[in-house]
Amino acid sequence: MSTYPAGTFPATFIGGAAGVWRIETSTAVTGEPLPPADRLEVREGIVPTSAGTWRLSGVAGHPRYVERREKAQLDPVTPPLGRPEATMAALIPIRKSAAWWALPQDERRAIFEQRSRHIADSMPFLPRIARRLYHARDLGQPFDFLTWFEFAPGHARAFDELVAMLRSREEWTYVDREVDIRLAR
Amino acid sequence: MSTYPAGTFPATFIGGAAGVWRIETSTAVTGEPLPPADRLEVREGIVPTSAGTWRLSGVAGHPRYVERREKAQLDPVTPPLGRPEATMAALIPIRKSAAWWALPQDERRAIFEQRSRHIADSMPFLPRIARRLYHARDLGQPFDFLTWFEFAPGHARAFDELVAMLRSREEWTYVDREVDIRLAR
Repeated sequence: MSTYPAGTFPATFIGGAAGVWRIETSTAVTGEPLPPADRLEVREGIVPTSAGTWRLSGVAGHPRYVERREKAQLDPVTPPLGRPEATMAALIPIRKSAAWWALPQDERRAIFEQRSRHIADSMPFLPRIARRLYHARDLGQPFDFLTWFEFAPGHARAFDELVAMLRSREEWTYVDREVDIRLAR
Repeated sequence: MSTYPAGTFPATFIGGAAGVWRIETSTAVTGEPLPPADRLEVREGIVPTSAGTWRLSGVAGHPRYVERREKAQLDPVTPPLGRPEATMAALIPIRKSAAWWALPQDERRAIFEQRSRHIADSMPFLPRIARRLYHARDLGQPFDFLTWFEFAPGHARAFDELVAMLRSREEWTYVDREVDIRLAR
């Protein structure tokens, strides 16, 4: 029943005792935490499994807010996932409120970029931080997005700055659940 | 693992021998047809089932292209689903090409509305035709959208006009699979 087309990247994140990523911290920033786990396994696909103590699935795919001129700026400085030196990672699952999802497209875009400068102010952190945004809302998951980041230890402080910047903006007033999971391999 | 929030409407359409809707015709407009079936059952939720000869699931939810001023025009003239006089329906599953999904948001919006007038030229058909758009791409389904329409027999000709208008526009050059299923109860 599920066959994902080229250009989409379904993944399942499993928190438990297995996986190449060691969970260093798991912090409930807003709302409910996730159950404790020692390691994180990332599997390709939406995997029906009872492995681990928690499981989150999402699908990365087409851009929801990025416009042509932004894409032209982003593409050349966006690093790939899986760089050998990127031995640190973060999985930050996020849910936005009903008020966010009730907004029409132009108002969500205005909050996201014109008022919160999500793309413009993230740009200086590239190409140090690799990232992929998985969408989970249409999958009936407990979060709307699973945001995934990879970086070298020397850029951990820059990553903290990026996350603090995003959390300080108007867009984040619509976030009603957020867990920040830091990882190392 | 799947609990859908308020404001989302997951559904599974099952073509087979059961269901309140009689399948009058099922036409492959572009690409592969669906296997023949006599009746259509619509179940709430993403239902794992082997019932029927085919199954399609999708989730209706937040607007992807509609802007505030359009929403203000649409909302007052949008009829509910399930009107007693709406004894005819259409299920039109649609898939768009990789080229469509690779476009940034502003270019998809421009094709959808500025150049194809999807919203503006659909508006005159309201409130005669009730509709709901289910998204299926993130679910790994064979179609990206399941479009659902309900209308009274007296408005069947208007519905044909609406569908012909949409198919004649630039947006539709990105449709690479479409099946048109007409129903009555």
